[in-house]
Amino acid sequence: MTTTQVTLLQIDNYGPWTTTPEPRREMDLQTLQSRLYADVAQFLGHRDAYVFSTRFDNMVAVTNGVDGAAHESLQRSVGNRYPVSVSLGTAVAERPVDALESANGRLQTAGSAQDESRTEVLAGEYLSETDPADLQVAHFDVVDTTGKYTDRLNEFDTFVNIERAYGSLMRHLREAHGSLSFFVGGDNIVAVCPDLPERAFDEAIAHVDGDVDVELQVGVGRGASAHEAGFAAKHALEDCRRDGTSVELFGAPAAGD
Amino acid sequence: MTTTQVTLLQIDNYGPWTTTPEPRREMDLQTLQSRLYADVAQFLGHRDAYVFSTRFDNMVAVTNGVDGAAHESLQRSVGNRYPVSVSLGTAVAERPVDALESANGRLQTAGSAQDESRTEVLAGEYLSETDPADLQVAHFDVVDTTGKYTDRLNEFDTFVNIERAYGSLMRHLREAHGSLSFFVGGDNIVAVCPDLPERAFDEAIAHVDGDVDVELQVGVGRGASAHEAGFAAKHALEDCRRDGTSVELFGAPAAGD
Amino acid sequence: MTTTQVTLLQIDNYGPWTTTPEPRREMDLQTLQSRLYADVAQFLGHRDAYVFSTRFDNMVAVTNGVDGAAHESLQRSVGNRYPVSVSLGTAVAERPVDALESANGRLQTAGSAQDESRTEVLAGEYLSETDPADLQVAHFDVVDTTGKYTDRLNEFDTFVNIERAYGSLMRHLREAHGSLSFFVGGDNIVAVCPDLPERAFDEAIAHVDGDVDVELQVGVGRGASAHEAGFAAKHALEDCRRDGTSVELFGAPAAGD
Amino acid sequence: MTTTQVTLLQIDNYGPWTTTPEPRREMDLQTLQSRLYADVAQFLGHRDAYVFSTRFDNMVAVTNGVDGAAHESLQRSVGNRYPVSVSLGTAVAERPVDALESANGRLQTAGSAQDESRTEVLAGEYLSETDPADLQVAHFDVVDTTGKYTDRLNEFDTFVNIERAYGSLMRHLREAHGSLSFFVGGDNIVAVCPDLPERAFDEAIAHVDGDVDVELQVGVGRGASAHEAGFAAKHALEDCRRDGTSVELFGAPAAGD
Repeated sequence: MTTTQVTLLQIDNYGPWTTTPEPRREMDLQTLQSRLYADVAQFLGHRDAYVFSTRFDNMVAVTNGVDGAAHESLQRSVGNRYPVSVSLGTAVAERPVDALESANGRLQTAGSAQDESRTEVLAGEYLSETDPADLQVAHFDVVDTTGKYTDRLNEFDTFVNIERAYGSLMRHLREAHGSLSFFVGGDNIVAVCPDLPERAFDEAIAHVDGDVDVELQVGVGRGASAHEAGFAAKHALEDCRRDGTSVELFGAPAAGD
Repeated sequence: MTTTQVTLLQIDNYGPWTTTPEPRREMDLQTLQSRLYADVAQFLGHRDAYVFSTRFDNMVAVTNGVDGAAHESLQRSVGNRYPVSVSLGTAVAERPVDALESANGRLQTAGSAQDESRTEVLAGEYLSETDPADLQVAHFDVVDTTGKYTDRLNEFDTFVNIERAYGSLMRHLREAHGSLSFFVGGDNIVAVCPDLPERAFDEAIAHVDGDVDVELQVGVGRGASAHEAGFAAKHALEDCRRDGTSVELFGAPAAGD
Repeated sequence: MTTTQVTLLQIDNYGPWTTTPEPRREMDLQTLQSRLYADVAQFLGHRDAYVFSTRFDNMVAVTNGVDGAAHESLQRSVGNRYPVSVSLGTAVAERPVDALESANGRLQTAGSAQDESRTEVLAGEYLSETDPADLQVAHFDVVDTTGKYTDRLNEFDTFVNIERAYGSLMRHLREAHGSLSFFVGGDNIVAVCPDLPERAFDEAIAHVDGDVDVELQVGVGRGASAHEAGFAAKHALEDCRRDGTSVELFGAPAAGD
Repeated sequence: MTTTQVTLLQIDNYGPWTTTPEPRREMDLQTLQSRLYADVAQFLGHRDAYVFSTRFDNMVAVTNGVDGAAHESLQRSVGNRYPVSVSLGTAVAERPVDALESANGRLQTAGSAQDESRTEVLAGEYLSETDPADLQVAHFDVVDTTGKYTDRLNEFDTFVNIERAYGSLMRHLREAHGSLSFFVGGDNIVAVCPDLPERAFDEAIAHVDGDVDVELQVGVGRGASAHEAGFAAKHALEDCRRDGTSVELFGAPAAGD
């Protein structure tokens, strides 16, 4: 059984800020968002957590092993260095989507995302212990993207295919299993899952193939942190690439890394 | 009639690099990608161009007004500061997708994206003049996202809705008009278009509503650069928000900005 | 008695890299150096350590409470994201300069800073425990810089005065006490000290006044980490500013921060 | 005769901000300052200008070829992405220090650096043309730093020597010639000069040797921009290193770069 700690990071009152007193330059907004995401990725990444950019004004993180003090420190550091502040809600559940639902509810209870008096909320429950079986992470990619798409189509049409595969997969895993899947660049999708058997991944790959005609492969790992589970998943995916298999579970542990 | 200059930026041989000698930490890769994107956004943004993160290892930019020397300077600067290098292909056409197709072809002709000897390609044609009618940019967002989604659903389910709307819109505008549409965070989508009449935007909004049941609104602007056209579009979108209209064309020019 | 853990971070073979195959653009080098420093400052800062930019190709950090695994993680993360790699030497001693001497010696023993085969050295000893009396940090600034200098002289002549004060102070504290002092911007100097009495700070201020005719004030703090000691020092310096005193020791502890 | 355009960048009301409502964490401030500097370095560097970090809250830039619109764009972009804003004063003179004095005066006239109502001043005169003889830049370094210092002394004692050499040189060139000299990391010092003959550099090197017993060498270049002049200086310094000479003037122009 998995135990997933999820943190929702929400920029406070961001929408109105982007157009006050008049619309801000788009490339400045994109720079701000990307750098904020990169900073959070470094902060949480060095604590073996994962964070996904999602909509950029709302980011979803898997934070097993990161305590309340670290969350507070992250919030203060952002406040010291950016023109915007962030609220953080954290919760724990077996299924990732249930943890997020609960984490998100803590912010929604405190007020609207566009309530200018609701700033720097820090609310949550944090795991006091971690276990090597707590997290299951799946790392998908598209079989032979470079040969089939990147070197043959224009980048936008390649992207259309990757995006369709991502959309199909993320909705399937959300509905069937309460998993949260994120596109992380190139042809890579990282899914944070409950305790799923190999069959569930076979089904997911078949679903996407039937739905949008894109062929995926996946490595799956377990671990006490997102990094541990995700790193095992990456190694398992390397096995797929080497052996031509579609699903590889429980790759070598991330020892020493 | 529009004249769109599009640049494809491709990280050289990036896929292999990310797993050599063994997979690199995911959060380090995410940080690298986001910061590279932010740097390109600053470089091009200050020249009134737009760049979109797309798949991060391939970025698409609208670069009217940015000459070959500036492209070379960007390429060298990335090479001086990152562990990876980039290739740049640029071309001009009436429809954005045709410009991208041609820009992309220049890199594909030079070699595969995963050919380790094909690095730092710089190939292209650049407009020698700019005209206030060269670009048409549309800025879409979702009507009342905060009230309907952000404050009510968990972030992932909100994202599922936004992602579906984006997927539906980007495919429609690509197929019907050769437009390139990009999700830029929150509930915002920026589309680079050929010369489209108001009716085309009404149809696009109706298409998405019928397809995935998400209500969009859009501001449309023209200009000599992506920033000029996009800034006019943002102002037009402000008019939609204020007046409750669905489509606003040709907002006030970005004078003085 | 203090117990200071010092880490020397050295960019491997940096000098030759900056001019190979020909000199690189100065602003690219400055950007690279500043961002590397900022990344290290975030990494160590969130672990309550301090790092100083020093010569940028060599940075000095006070790392009480940061273990070997964290140092290894920092080294790998830099290697994943920059075109250069870093070596790290760490040691512990009562006096800061002795800790640095020993930390530095670990790298020098392994090879020259410009030996291209000596890369990513990771050598050191790390404190297994921390104590609230381990570190003494002094935060100096110049009395009424804005009124006397910034608003009256041109910036370079202001800088000449601040630089002279810094040079005079850093050499005095180095020779008299084995302290390491760093200019941190504006008119601020942070000194990492052994266990010094109030008299030593009176003398240091008098020395600088007599030597270069610049008037300093100083807050001094103690703590288990550089942040704890430095934060207490900042609060003590606020007392100087409020009360017009020259030296304030052992400010309120950084509880809750 | 040289014609130097100098810009002073000053963070508005920065001192009070750093301690309001209580002192901010030192590593957050260092990160903010370094990243702001890096951003300005990228912005101006891509326009062939140089900027020096100086005291970080005040930076000095040599901006021949950068017009008022670009300065305004930089100011707005910083305002969009940082929790602080900046004022910019620009002026032109034969001697660098006179240009700075005049640029600085424009901000001082507008109000104090710590006047909270004096924000985002943009005042200046900008050259309408550039000439290949406008700027003279000298790039100094220390002869055999690695062998004499880095590999033998601890980093702080190495730094003490470099800092003494820098202090001695910067004061000499300021007083004798109105030059502005900046330490740029490692053992490198960049000096922006009026039209000085070779003899002036011989004297400067002899002065530092006699004053603090550190041996310097220098390459000197001319150009229409700081980059052009500085790049020629770097090439000239490479000649010193290769030939064992102390002063090399007017290196090969930076053609094609």
